[in-house]
Amino acid sequence: MIIAYDGSRYYGWEHQPDIELTIQGKLEGVLSRMTGKDVAVTGAGRTDAGVHSIGMTANAHIDCDLPAGQIQDYLNRYLPEDICVTDVSYVSDRFHSRYNARGKVYRYTCWVGNLKPVFERKYVYVLEKRPDIEKMRKAAAYLTGTHDFASFCGNPHMKKSTVREIFSISIVQKGDKIEFTYHGRGFLQYMVRILTGTLLEVGLGKRNPDSMPALIEAGNRQEAGYTVPAKGLCLMQVDY
Amino acid sequence: MIIAYDGSRYYGWEHQPDIELTIQGKLEGVLSRMTGKDVAVTGAGRTDAGVHSIGMTANAHIDCDLPAGQIQDYLNRYLPEDICVTDVSYVSDRFHSRYNARGKVYRYTCWVGNLKPVFERKYVYVLEKRPDIEKMRKAAAYLTGTHDFASFCGNPHMKKSTVREIFSISIVQKGDKIEFTYHGRGFLQYMVRILTGTLLEVGLGKRNPDSMPALIEAGNRQEAGYTVPAKGLCLMQVDY
Repeated sequence: MIIAYDGSRYYGWEHQPDIELTIQGKLEGVLSRMTGKDVAVTGAGRTDAGVHSIGMTANAHIDCDLPAGQIQDYLNRYLPEDICVTDVSYVSDRFHSRYNARGKVYRYTCWVGNLKPVFERKYVYVLEKRPDIEKMRKAAAYLTGTHDFASFCGNPHMKKSTVREIFSISIVQKGDKIEFTYHGRGFLQYMVRILTGTLLEVGLGKRNPDSMPALIEAGNRQEAGYTVPAKGLCLMQVDY
Repeated sequence: MIIAYDGSRYYGWEHQPDIELTIQGKLEGVLSRMTGKDVAVTGAGRTDAGVHSIGMTANAHIDCDLPAGQIQDYLNRYLPEDICVTDVSYVSDRFHSRYNARGKVYRYTCWVGNLKPVFERKYVYVLEKRPDIEKMRKAAAYLTGTHDFASFCGNPHMKKSTVREIFSISIVQKGDKIEFTYHGRGFLQYMVRILTGTLLEVGLGKRNPDSMPALIEAGNRQEAGYTVPAKGLCLMQVDY
């Protein structure tokens, strides 16, 4: 399944005990209703509370002989209006949304217009000042490639490797928006939001673009920039 | 003032006794706070609960020597994030937003995509079937001009004239949306939404385009189409 959602009112992707409103929980509820059995849904990753998606991918093992299109219609009929399954297909029994993912694209959108974004306010982060895009691009060039991103990891108790590979970071101004697009093999918790906060500090002159190598080297979350708000973030695509 | 707002959570433009959430009420609250006196705000018209605006115009008489730009900044600082004042200027003391208005543009947006509009769901009306645009244009041509629009008036107790002039109606498909744009000298209560409901019935083959003259002639609300939901409607512009 590919799933688009407005994460504004959800406690993130992953279902949790005693928490009703998660995307995974909503999908499992509707698929369980459809099949009459408990269904577990496996996502390509976990989006945090308030993060949106256009391209989240998830799989489930179900006993069902409905055509994929009918499953999609059923899901969209019973899911709330802020979740839409944009594609359903049958895949090999061995397919695993997370283990088979080869890359992900996240986009973080900032608003730099003079006026408040009345209609897009839930999908953008409003900046008071306009950051320097060329400086941010220079800093971003240091961040692409394979590095230990411990400085950009929001989980202080992370025990596994914090090495990740970023294929590309593009920073583009489109009208009143600046879009940061991150394509990588995988990302640590809050990593995209901390990268964006750090790049914005570069763009606003609070950091030097050339300070990125030392920041990576430090391996210390305290040295990186702030975590920008969840609402500007959207999972765009998962590669297989 | 020109005011953009997301009407989703408001009880419409006009302040009412015991109702906190109106656009006019919010504006009056902030202007009263700014000036230290009670301020009355006069709008170009009243949008109903759930209707949006990009171009609502309003005026107020205030004792104040701040430059217009500073008034705008103050308003945008204290107004909630779903209301934005996009322009402020000083005008003649005789200016009246409603009496001086020479025309208004409303847009009604329908969604005809196969997938649910997750991110635009509060600003569009989702159609199950695709209406025939040529048929709707043919019907719309009968509705432009000066007519007694009693058949399209949502207020059954309307005592004043129900004659109005529509300069133009354009119906355009843009991707997954169909936009109905109405430019007229003025509109009756619910008139744009009843016109749109009637045109959609034409587009779906439930009415003949050529039945419009008889429908206007009837002068009976029961003969016209249904009132489409408020959320697809946006006041785009007021002409002076």
